[in-house]
Amino acid sequence: MSKQILILPGDGIGPEIMAEAVKVLRLANDKYALGFELSFDELGGAAVDKYGVPLADETLERARAADAVLLGAVGGPKWDKIDPAIRPERGLLKIRSQLGLFANLRPAILYPQLADASSLKPEVVAGLDILIVRELTGGIYFGQPRESKVLDNGERMAYDTLPYSESEIRRIAKVGFDMARVRGNKLCSVDKANVLASSQLWRTVVEEVAKDYPDVALSHMYVDNAAMQLVRAPKQFDVVVTDNMFGDILSDEASMLTGSIGMLPSASLDANNKGMYEPCHGSAPDIAGQGIANPLATILSVSMMLRYSFNQTQAADAIEQAVSRVLDQGLRTGDIHSAGTTKVGTAAMGDAVVEAL
Amino acid sequence: MSKQILILPGDGIGPEIMAEAVKVLRLANDKYALGFELSFDELGGAAVDKYGVPLADETLERARAADAVLLGAVGGPKWDKIDPAIRPERGLLKIRSQLGLFANLRPAILYPQLADASSLKPEVVAGLDILIVRELTGGIYFGQPRESKVLDNGERMAYDTLPYSESEIRRIAKVGFDMARVRGNKLCSVDKANVLASSQLWRTVVEEVAKDYPDVALSHMYVDNAAMQLVRAPKQFDVVVTDNMFGDILSDEASMLTGSIGMLPSASLDANNKGMYEPCHGSAPDIAGQGIANPLATILSVSMMLRYSFNQTQAADAIEQAVSRVLDQGLRTGDIHSAGTTKVGTAAMGDAVVEAL
Ligand SMILES: CC(C)[C@H](C(=O)O)[C@@H](O)C(=O)O
Ligand SMILES: CC(C)[C@H](C(=O)O)[C@@H](O)C(=O)O
Repeated sequence: MSKQILILPGDGIGPEIMAEAVKVLRLANDKYALGFELSFDELGGAAVDKYGVPLADETLERARAADAVLLGAVGGPKWDKIDPAIRPERGLLKIRSQLGLFANLRPAILYPQLADASSLKPEVVAGLDILIVRELTGGIYFGQPRESKVLDNGERMAYDTLPYSESEIRRIAKVGFDMARVRGNKLCSVDKANVLASSQLWRTVVEEVAKDYPDVALSHMYVDNAAMQLVRAPKQFDVVVTDNMFGDILSDEASMLTGSIGMLPSASLDANNKGMYEPCHGSAPDIAGQGIANPLATILSVSMMLRYSFNQTQAADAIEQAVSRVLDQGLRTGDIHSAGTTKVGTAAMGDAVVEAL
Repeated sequence: MSKQILILPGDGIGPEIMAEAVKVLRLANDKYALGFELSFDELGGAAVDKYGVPLADETLERARAADAVLLGAVGGPKWDKIDPAIRPERGLLKIRSQLGLFANLRPAILYPQLADASSLKPEVVAGLDILIVRELTGGIYFGQPRESKVLDNGERMAYDTLPYSESEIRRIAKVGFDMARVRGNKLCSVDKANVLASSQLWRTVVEEVAKDYPDVALSHMYVDNAAMQLVRAPKQFDVVVTDNMFGDILSDEASMLTGSIGMLPSASLDANNKGMYEPCHGSAPDIAGQGIANPLATILSVSMMLRYSFNQTQAADAIEQAVSRVLDQGLRTGDIHSAGTTKVGTAAMGDAVVEAL
């Protein structure tokens, strides 16, 4: 009954932060007898270097065969000038799509120990705990046709297509409602139904799904207003469900409200809760290789993996508590460091979590 | 040599705030011998009620013939259930498109007198002065084809199209660079070039236009990162240029950073600087008819009109100074009221600006 975990460290700070997460994962594996077997492969720029493509077929097969995937981060200036078709991000988009990981869960939680790090006033963000549920395999990210061409008059033009089907909307709406049920019973669906045809269908289908969740308070908000309300009064939100592009924008805005994006994990799930787990932050090429990156978002991604894909609540809680304890001890990587706390590097932070666990 | 100004008060608080702006406009007209002739018509819900459509042909003809248009705000629950084709917003989108108002300028300025109103820490937003230049007549707002249909398998689906041509991108990029030149010489172009074909063309064309502006420092940012950076460190931005949808989202987010969206005007210009001017805020149906709405954004829209469409710098400056004086006097409408200041209604605020002018 062993479980296969595929580890994709990726680019930039990916390998460094993943090394720490793997320490924590191995310890949890032993301590809670989880029966995990780890294997390693490449995604993104590292895969371009090794295989010539950002997601090799054999890697995709390994990911399919695995019970869960743990990802570091992808991308970097080294691959900025290559053929757009094999840019590192293409590997990320392809694995999401090929594994059917349509439900992207991005929590924005303010850790009390890090309250100062936010650029917002303390009373506006204290206790902040939002979950953004982003549709991840549809919409304008994957819509066909898309094209770049030269018109008869010699002018260049390019276009993308933003499609949504009823079933795509229904399944992500259900995830939103299900999440709201185990949280604060409030779901806000974000769209641009006053302008977009796809958003009008989105709103209609979300309303239909709502009939099965009479206990969840549903509201609708236009995306421009949501971007404002996240700044004005973010604590009005519990769970937010939205499309791929709006979710990309709003989840990044929401995570930055906490001031400590280096702390935030994310999960991308398929219909059976098989998932890929990764930090919300990027590959931070500017600090790669220096041993100063914050590994906590990746470590917390391990915790999310235990919770969502393996139902190992106890082990998941233990990791979160270990992270909290390390923050209580005053340990901070550079990104969350402030006066009166102790600055540590990536490995020291990982070791401290292992110790606390 | 008289100049025609078409006034469209619109819905909700529109008529109330417009009444005050018109007082200020009439005074400026007399005082600076501007030779303006004002005429009035309807847009949005009010036009649906009067003409059966949110923008009547005769109104559009009047707008074409006018030298500038001053708009209140459109929309409200009264028209929420009508045929989507004649919703109030459709009138707004149509007038933008038909008048060729492709350049939407949305300043986000923090008034020192209102520094407390922001949900961000004072040091993060003190002195904030950003200009968002939003493309307003292209992209996914108007892209064809767009459709809602039932597939052969009985499933509903809907899609929108996001097109951009070289010439559309070039002309809005030029506006961005021109604005940067008369401000801080910094332009940030926001796109999603790592995913969208239209964004790749956007970035290419902006780079080409940049060759004519070697004195302006150009940077590129992905829209998700921009949404984060606006929260983290908004003062890094001077002028931001972006597409219609991203501009809708980011300009609302940016304006909310100030905490006083009731203060922010906007301009929508065509190729000859003919423009439509309106407050950034909406029609606020919840407080309509109570005489408590903030008229200052509409009054400042008059100032923008004098500046951009008529080159009347002196009169424009005088209105801005009058607004500033009224704030110095401690007068505040409910939306910007705080302890130690004097709460006034819409008309009293308008009268105070007239007085100060
Ligand atoms: C790297 C990029 C393609 C990706 C996205 O836009 O989805 C990233 O921004 C994210 O949110 O995971
Ligand atoms: C009312 C709506 C259609 C409009 C838009 O999306 O452009 C509004 O949000 C705005 O920004 O002026």
